[in-house]
Amino acid sequence: MSAPVKINRLDSTQTDFAQQLDHLLAWEAVSDTAVNQTVADILHQVKTRGDDALLEFTAKFDRQTVADFSELEMSRVRLQQALDGLPEAQRTALEQACERVRRYHEKQVQDSWHYTEADGTLLGQQVTPMDRVGIYVPGGKASYPSSVLMNAIPAKVAGVVEIIMVVPTPNGEVNELVLAAACLAGVDRVFTIGGAQAVAALAYGTESVPKVDKIVGPGNIYVATAKRMVFGAVGIDMIAGPSEILVVCDGKTDPDWIAMDLFSQAEHDEDAQPILVSWDAAFLEQVEQSIQKLLPTMEREAIIRVSMAERAALIQVQDLAEAIVVTNRIAPEHLELSVENPLEVSSQIRHAGAIFMGRYTAEALGDYCAGPNHVLPTSGTARFSSPLGVYDFQKRSSLIMCSAEGASEMGKIASVLARGESLTAHARSAEYRIKPE
Amino acid sequence: MSAPVKINRLDSTQTDFAQQLDHLLAWEAVSDTAVNQTVADILHQVKTRGDDALLEFTAKFDRQTVADFSELEMSRVRLQQALDGLPEAQRTALEQACERVRRYHEKQVQDSWHYTEADGTLLGQQVTPMDRVGIYVPGGKASYPSSVLMNAIPAKVAGVVEIIMVVPTPNGEVNELVLAAACLAGVDRVFTIGGAQAVAALAYGTESVPKVDKIVGPGNIYVATAKRMVFGAVGIDMIAGPSEILVVCDGKTDPDWIAMDLFSQAEHDEDAQPILVSWDAAFLEQVEQSIQKLLPTMEREAIIRVSMAERAALIQVQDLAEAIVVTNRIAPEHLELSVENPLEVSSQIRHAGAIFMGRYTAEALGDYCAGPNHVLPTSGTARFSSPLGVYDFQKRSSLIMCSAEGASEMGKIASVLARGESLTAHARSAEYRIKPE
Repeated sequence: MSAPVKINRLDSTQTDFAQQLDHLLAWEAVSDTAVNQTVADILHQVKTRGDDALLEFTAKFDRQTVADFSELEMSRVRLQQALDGLPEAQRTALEQACERVRRYHEKQVQDSWHYTEADGTLLGQQVTPMDRVGIYVPGGKASYPSSVLMNAIPAKVAGVVEIIMVVPTPNGEVNELVLAAACLAGVDRVFTIGGAQAVAALAYGTESVPKVDKIVGPGNIYVATAKRMVFGAVGIDMIAGPSEILVVCDGKTDPDWIAMDLFSQAEHDEDAQPILVSWDAAFLEQVEQSIQKLLPTMEREAIIRVSMAERAALIQVQDLAEAIVVTNRIAPEHLELSVENPLEVSSQIRHAGAIFMGRYTAEALGDYCAGPNHVLPTSGTARFSSPLGVYDFQKRSSLIMCSAEGASEMGKIASVLARGESLTAHARSAEYRIKPE
Repeated sequence: MSAPVKINRLDSTQTDFAQQLDHLLAWEAVSDTAVNQTVADILHQVKTRGDDALLEFTAKFDRQTVADFSELEMSRVRLQQALDGLPEAQRTALEQACERVRRYHEKQVQDSWHYTEADGTLLGQQVTPMDRVGIYVPGGKASYPSSVLMNAIPAKVAGVVEIIMVVPTPNGEVNELVLAAACLAGVDRVFTIGGAQAVAALAYGTESVPKVDKIVGPGNIYVATAKRMVFGAVGIDMIAGPSEILVVCDGKTDPDWIAMDLFSQAEHDEDAQPILVSWDAAFLEQVEQSIQKLLPTMEREAIIRVSMAERAALIQVQDLAEAIVVTNRIAPEHLELSVENPLEVSSQIRHAGAIFMGRYTAEALGDYCAGPNHVLPTSGTARFSSPLGVYDFQKRSSLIMCSAEGASEMGKIASVLARGESLTAHARSAEYRIKPE
């Protein structure tokens, strides 16, 4: 028998509840000087020496030595083989997930628009896809086919012309499910490179790896640091923190279900943060008992145990209204509203990456196949950012076409304002377009 | 008489045209170790010591010493006084610009949506505004009222609850037009602080300055460095490079107009980049003559001269098709299509911040009052980013509500995929929702 895990308890009636909550949520990514230096050097090497540097780093970090760079590219034929080689159940599940995720993301496509004013002036916004996008997929144990789908499908739906995937194969270890997912999602080219060197190759381009416009996908501290450094030269997605879930429950869901929902977050990594909020004290007790009961049965017990002990919390609040206040304070990545009228409650949620409503909607369903993206803003960043989506692979150009009449009227306004800013070339450029009275 | 300025000439028939173009466009923001260290220290001081640190830095950098922090806040009454005190023409122009910009941005508002599947499962996306946004406005000479409108109005239209503006007043110097613009745009609170210390105050909050969710607005190298460093704790807009314009002309626009349009970019700063592309060699000559003729008449001649000599180019191409290729390679911040059928051409533009169509549509009209935003992606970043807009102040939450039937079917898919990834808590959480056969 393993010992019960001690789980944080918070109570909103305690006078220092706000500080306790702040303390619970505090998370700061460590910026490591040594890592920064290593990554800066790798970026420099790849930028200046291209393929040669990539070959060296791949031999060094992934213990993969090849005679020619072309061996580091995987053909579409190889991806198709991976898909064809899957057991039937896995292939069907992957196809169904792919189809559901695609269908949801198609609703996110943004279209160009314009309108014409009375004097004939046209204003609008032209929406276009990016030309080329890079998707980073971690190698080894954290290599998830579902992540390939979630990163590639929105890009594909957006109309991105070419999707390049990079995935390291340390010691030659290849994940067939990842390749199959790439095949299904429509990835165009795959390079078996990884780490900061792969990010550099995508950001700057080399003789063999084409330069992309944006890099998305999760990675370790070296990959995250590299992404932060190349930001500006290319676009990047958010730098993700540890995963978290907040479950708000009215006490009427099976406590075993809620315990397992918390575990599904906790099993990701020791820093993952599972939190349960309820106004039913007895229910918090029941869930705690379910946790203690189920924990020893978990395949990833060791990881879950650390996450539950170090980062989890069971929070007692006064009522639903207070649960909503706490939720908006946390701005969780995943929010489960395991309550009676979840739609009504969801309209009061100001900040959350994804909202899972009702007792049946386990967060895990959203991770794989419900349709919405599983790449979500972590660590409270839902206050200002959104799930990965089609909109992350589209961009907008403003459209302005002034009629002679419109230019003349606007020219007068611009002239006054430009002279107020002492920008007289602006003023004179506008004044040229004013009609003589 | 001042000497004629020597302007770069490129010709697409030259064998090294591509390299010449690369060289022309090359721009790399300098990352200065000393600046990084100074900014890191300022951020740390403000984060740990709050108002006290802000007071010290404001006294040191802006030579503004106050007895109490409240003197660094400006009341809405003071903003209204600034607006009321403007000369009639300026007030009217500012109001007209504000109204046009607001009307355009209202078209950008994104709404929540959802749909219900056959089995009753609901999927969707809830769109919400940010709670609180900070707008940085530079002090002194680069303090532009138009920038206040362009940054504040999209936030206001998005429904941001509170807009906080920071603007340094070095030596007590206040720009009445900036305050008037803040009043019109609906800024809620104004603090007369600036530099990295103002960015830190907005990112972390102090006793007097509330913490915001996103910081937007231009600034010097200290401000830009601070924004990059706080990114993640709060959202930020793009880090802007020098401004640029690309004019594509068929040779039938008045060369003086085109020369002045190029100057309107050049007068911003010595690093600004004005480029003209045409397939009419004689027209390039005429514009060059207009440049030489008009340059000595410009108020900002000195700045324009450096920009024209160091960063400008007149590029001769073979035809319109090649002009479009060059444009998409450049991905310009501002694109003027001074040609016969600009709408037709615009549909072939894949990357540009804003497209100004037709001979009447001077870029300066867009800077002030056409309606679209003047905060645009620079240095080729239009390949992957967009003008500042309402969408920058809204964020999305995915909505998922599975019916019992839907959860059961999806549970089967999720179970297979989760077990394929060895995430068995995910699998078991999903499996709880599968109906017994």
